[in-house]
Amino acid sequence: MEIKIVKTANPKEKPEEDSLIFGVEFTDYMFEMDYTEGIGWHDAVIKPYGPIEIMPSAMVLHYAQEVFEGLKAYKTPAGEIQLFRPDENFKRMNRSNARMCIPQIDENFLLEALKALVKMDESWIPKSPGTSLYIRPFVFATDPFIGVRVSKRYKFMIIMSPVGSYYKGGMVPSRIYVESEFARTVRGGTGEAKCGGNYAGGLAAQQKVHEMGFEQILWLDGEKRQYIEEVGTSNVFFLIDGVFVTPSLEGTILNGITRKSVIELLKHWGETVEERRITIDELYQAYQQGKITEAFATGTAAVIAPIGTLGWKDVEMTFNDGKIGEYSQKIYDTLYDVQTGNKEDPLNWIVKL
Amino acid sequence: MEIKIVKTANPKEKPEEDSLIFGVEFTDYMFEMDYTEGIGWHDAVIKPYGPIEIMPSAMVLHYAQEVFEGLKAYKTPAGEIQLFRPDENFKRMNRSNARMCIPQIDENFLLEALKALVKMDESWIPKSPGTSLYIRPFVFATDPFIGVRVSKRYKFMIIMSPVGSYYKGGMVPSRIYVESEFARTVRGGTGEAKCGGNYAGGLAAQQKVHEMGFEQILWLDGEKRQYIEEVGTSNVFFLIDGVFVTPSLEGTILNGITRKSVIELLKHWGETVEERRITIDELYQAYQQGKITEAFATGTAAVIAPIGTLGWKDVEMTFNDGKIGEYSQKIYDTLYDVQTGNKEDPLNWIVKL
Repeated sequence: MEIKIVKTANPKEKPEEDSLIFGVEFTDYMFEMDYTEGIGWHDAVIKPYGPIEIMPSAMVLHYAQEVFEGLKAYKTPAGEIQLFRPDENFKRMNRSNARMCIPQIDENFLLEALKALVKMDESWIPKSPGTSLYIRPFVFATDPFIGVRVSKRYKFMIIMSPVGSYYKGGMVPSRIYVESEFARTVRGGTGEAKCGGNYAGGLAAQQKVHEMGFEQILWLDGEKRQYIEEVGTSNVFFLIDGVFVTPSLEGTILNGITRKSVIELLKHWGETVEERRITIDELYQAYQQGKITEAFATGTAAVIAPIGTLGWKDVEMTFNDGKIGEYSQKIYDTLYDVQTGNKEDPLNWIVKL
Repeated sequence: MEIKIVKTANPKEKPEEDSLIFGVEFTDYMFEMDYTEGIGWHDAVIKPYGPIEIMPSAMVLHYAQEVFEGLKAYKTPAGEIQLFRPDENFKRMNRSNARMCIPQIDENFLLEALKALVKMDESWIPKSPGTSLYIRPFVFATDPFIGVRVSKRYKFMIIMSPVGSYYKGGMVPSRIYVESEFARTVRGGTGEAKCGGNYAGGLAAQQKVHEMGFEQILWLDGEKRQYIEEVGTSNVFFLIDGVFVTPSLEGTILNGITRKSVIELLKHWGETVEERRITIDELYQAYQQGKITEAFATGTAAVIAPIGTLGWKDVEMTFNDGKIGEYSQKIYDTLYDVQTGNKEDPLNWIVKL
């Protein structure tokens, strides 16, 4: 499919690199393409970023048939543009689409479209340490019909936002609370899909733990309220007795790309990683025995977020004296250096433009 | 708050009453109002039905922070306009809003706005038997921000669509399948909220049972896959040994207004109704003992949908020889007659315009 290009007559003024805020300002361009049953995906276009028109009856506004992705583009010291594992994002988007009954999208075409869009907005990729261009591909149901069924029309878009360093004053370990009343999902639900409903459903718990003085939730499984699943919208790792343990993919948690990369990197370093089910009881026992030396969350936004304290009922578990762990720092630094082109790419993750 | 009125210059041609399709055609007008943090709800307006503009970064398109309602307006034989329990819809909307971290909306104002809108579109209320004006109030997050947090801006709208008789060729008992792989929700999730995510998450199961030759899903609880919850997007009743049994409201199922009305009506008739937890094992046992004489689903669209056959694993349970039960018909007729003004309103459900 050919991508039509509509140039902007009024390029926007770029924000200062030292005051970038996540997800607020967007670049000059966006990518858009529509799906119609019987026709397929059509009318691919890169055009000036701006409002879209939808009918108030558009199914997304009623039944939330929608999926999104998140990844980043970086400018290397040599001035090259690079993307971190974009193929993994588009593969996951298609898996999410399958779960949400949204039609599949050609992954090679998506990569081509993304490259074309990033190229158009090349001047928007910030260069300061810690900054990047956050990329948001997403798809939603546009059928102007308010019966409950699978939509016959969709819109796929990519929008992009320059973002500042996640850790402005340096990495700070966070306070996480183990939630056992609210549930994020359950076996047979949409937990593995990166769909809107999972995120809206989590907001009330996020508000609750904020009020309790914690920054994020550690979700337990919906069935037994025992198995550890995710931290907020990130995956989670514990270093127990010298072994890295992370919840296995049982269909209820997000198949994180940073999670996958951290596992690959640790194995590349010769470390032992166990992907398995782990209960909060087992974790607490290991904590009491002094076996947990580090805990951290992984995700696209923060890359690595060390966990300083884990609240559970009336207990507070503190890991590594509440300080950043050796591995948390080393993994962060390595991923950051590979992503930004400051270090070579031993595991073939980078796609250059 | 004052409601601004913008008149249409081009009233649309109305569809034929004998060929009305659910949720496809909309009336001449819609109601719209916005919320901004620090200001509250503002800019209430009734204006010509048409597309709306939102930013591609609007939170609803990414994180599905959205809630909806559904109710109907009827024209009585005497030409009066009446609504069925609209106060219940707005109360439930505010309960859904609370779960989804959406600000509360003044219920009296909503009723006033709804009445004003229905009045403007009075000529759109169809008069033929079985027809009505379907009303869709909904609210969604419009904040142009792609971080995961509670939105600071929302849009509330009411759109309306004339709908034909749900049972064109008369009521037909349906084939329902008891789903035990997919889950709709779980304790601590969003099951009780009328939020988009619940509906998008159910589409895959709906597709699956269609392919198996069934029309809808009977959902079991997410935890034990034992307790009966809902049928599709409706509540469910079984007549067991002369007692009407319906799943109790445990926070995972929708607090249906037709459900509530059916319970009130049955009690008014002197029948026994039990709102309690009921397992699929208990149901099957009662079926084998020949104790189940009727089964039906309740919802705004169909009012009453008799269940002819319930598939579970490799078993098919047929109720009342697959024919419409005596009570199913009687409840349907009574509700229909009260809703359309063909019978007096013994339980004070009707709001006249």
